[in-house]
Amino acid sequence: MTHTITSINNSKLKLELQKKIDLKTKPLGALGLLEHLALKIGCIQNTLNPEISSPSIVVFAGDHGIATKGEVNPFPQEVTAQMVYNFVNGGAAINIFSNTNNLNLKIVDAGVNHKFPEALDIINAKIDFGTNNYQEEPAMTLEQCEKAINKSGNIISKLKNEGTNTIGFGEMGISNTSSAALLMSYFTKMPISECVGAGTGLNKEGISKKQQILSEVLKKHNPKNALEAVSIFGGFEIAMLCGAILKAAELKMIIVVDGFIVTAALLAAQAINKNVLDYCVFAHNSNEKGHIKMLAFLNAKPLLSLGLRLGEGTGAALAIPLLQASVNFLNNMASFDTAGVSEETVAN
Amino acid sequence: MTHTITSINNSKLKLELQKKIDLKTKPLGALGLLEHLALKIGCIQNTLNPEISSPSIVVFAGDHGIATKGEVNPFPQEVTAQMVYNFVNGGAAINIFSNTNNLNLKIVDAGVNHKFPEALDIINAKIDFGTNNYQEEPAMTLEQCEKAINKSGNIISKLKNEGTNTIGFGEMGISNTSSAALLMSYFTKMPISECVGAGTGLNKEGISKKQQILSEVLKKHNPKNALEAVSIFGGFEIAMLCGAILKAAELKMIIVVDGFIVTAALLAAQAINKNVLDYCVFAHNSNEKGHIKMLAFLNAKPLLSLGLRLGEGTGAALAIPLLQASVNFLNNMASFDTAGVSEETVAN
Repeated sequence: MTHTITSINNSKLKLELQKKIDLKTKPLGALGLLEHLALKIGCIQNTLNPEISSPSIVVFAGDHGIATKGEVNPFPQEVTAQMVYNFVNGGAAINIFSNTNNLNLKIVDAGVNHKFPEALDIINAKIDFGTNNYQEEPAMTLEQCEKAINKSGNIISKLKNEGTNTIGFGEMGISNTSSAALLMSYFTKMPISECVGAGTGLNKEGISKKQQILSEVLKKHNPKNALEAVSIFGGFEIAMLCGAILKAAELKMIIVVDGFIVTAALLAAQAINKNVLDYCVFAHNSNEKGHIKMLAFLNAKPLLSLGLRLGEGTGAALAIPLLQASVNFLNNMASFDTAGVSEETVAN
Repeated sequence: MTHTITSINNSKLKLELQKKIDLKTKPLGALGLLEHLALKIGCIQNTLNPEISSPSIVVFAGDHGIATKGEVNPFPQEVTAQMVYNFVNGGAAINIFSNTNNLNLKIVDAGVNHKFPEALDIINAKIDFGTNNYQEEPAMTLEQCEKAINKSGNIISKLKNEGTNTIGFGEMGISNTSSAALLMSYFTKMPISECVGAGTGLNKEGISKKQQILSEVLKKHNPKNALEAVSIFGGFEIAMLCGAILKAAELKMIIVVDGFIVTAALLAAQAINKNVLDYCVFAHNSNEKGHIKMLAFLNAKPLLSLGLRLGEGTGAALAIPLLQASVNFLNNMASFDTAGVSEETVAN
């Protein structure tokens, strides 16, 4: 699972891209974050004329040992499998947003505690029927974690071969905000109280109980490195997200980072290889409490802030039209020169 | 120019819409602002199944007497006409974003200081060849202002007849941040220093000079009402925006409010008829200094905050996919019941 990820550091191209942006028929800097985005995408693709091709959302679904106890999650574990069927039937939010924005949507069984029919239109990459409960033992073995990382890498390679160069990641897994909070605390060194939020809808008492439980979990384990942290705190979908992010960066794809859980997987991925961050754009600031601090830790400026806290890649799906708009303005907007528009008359 | 604008106040429908939203397969409230948006659009269209039809951007262009002096604007006045040609040739940011998001784009000559060829693909609604300089006299007569409001109303009625029910407004007019700042100060009673920003790119000294000039203009005039304020401070494109907003609300269209200048026109429109606000969604928070305070004055929560300060309706064009996403989730997402997904197990 070694990933060769090139750091992006082409200052000549950066200058040329900035010049191209500055000569467009608009006041300097007037397109704000879209200008940064165009610059970043140009750098990722190493070109003055980048393209968004066949943008895709990949949703990894997995179950969590802790969910069977119902102490950290208001929804029962079965909802993970039920939502996979909902994805296949086109009824979930991510289906709607993918359709709205013409995105290719793939659903991956990373380790749902349910046997899906073979004919179901999902990618079967099941590692196991849910993880173990990290209150008692590591969520998965190191071998399972590596297997998850490799399997998701293969899914990404295949998508890349099919023409996708822009990929948003999503997830589904009852209790996975707990895994994400544990990983956040491990990688950012913030106390667990900063990392635990309402998830799908805990109230104050529920959050307090979740904090207490996860605090015990942190005390129980002592991961030596990023891979161990992911294997201990889970889940399979997070391990796969981590592998998918590493592979997408290796393949120089544009990675559209969604919310709390995907960003937790990114924390692990960047601990394994810092260069992944050069390929990431941050879709949104989720309403799940810890997300804004994760983004600050990564020095990331999200595109949207819509108060979403749904996961499934919904934030990524909603942000992709902005990526398309940024690339299109870079490629197709007229320059002052070609349009015969006067530039500023005074240096001011 | 009397507009009959119905206030939206159907609490039964509101409850039904909220219930429909809450039964979708997602945690309560998990789609954040998109849920508010879906509710608002349902209320505007008085239905549980709203639709976005033939969404359009209308850009009004006009010139300003003060611009000929070059004291408040780094770009020369000719740029307004040059940009109209750029719009027609498809080279401006608003062309790119309209194409990206499949929006119908109309360009209106509200009063550019240039004679365009008759064959040019724009809507000719010219009131005059630029306004007068409000440093000396009102920008336009009351009759011109009423004519502008009526003419733009007719443009909107025609669009509505052609099937558009969602309309984003944009503008182009060198120096029009000055008119907008004057209107902002008049309607919000904030001091002009709070209302003046960099426009297309003034530096600190430029902003200070602009403040001083506009402060003198405010002292010189004493408008008795909203219509007089628009006629004194201009411009033709702002008067047309005001009329377009009033007519769109009368026709129960969804109004997508863009940045600083469009919001200034809305300040005038809502002073004429408060009910227009029931039909407005706010696309973005512009980087032009006064805009965030205008939005706060209107108690408006914008969808995007991308650091844009370009005008042309670019913020509106970028926000419309979010309107589409909100309507689509309301219409097409599965409910817990139909999808066979379990709801929360505990009251928590």
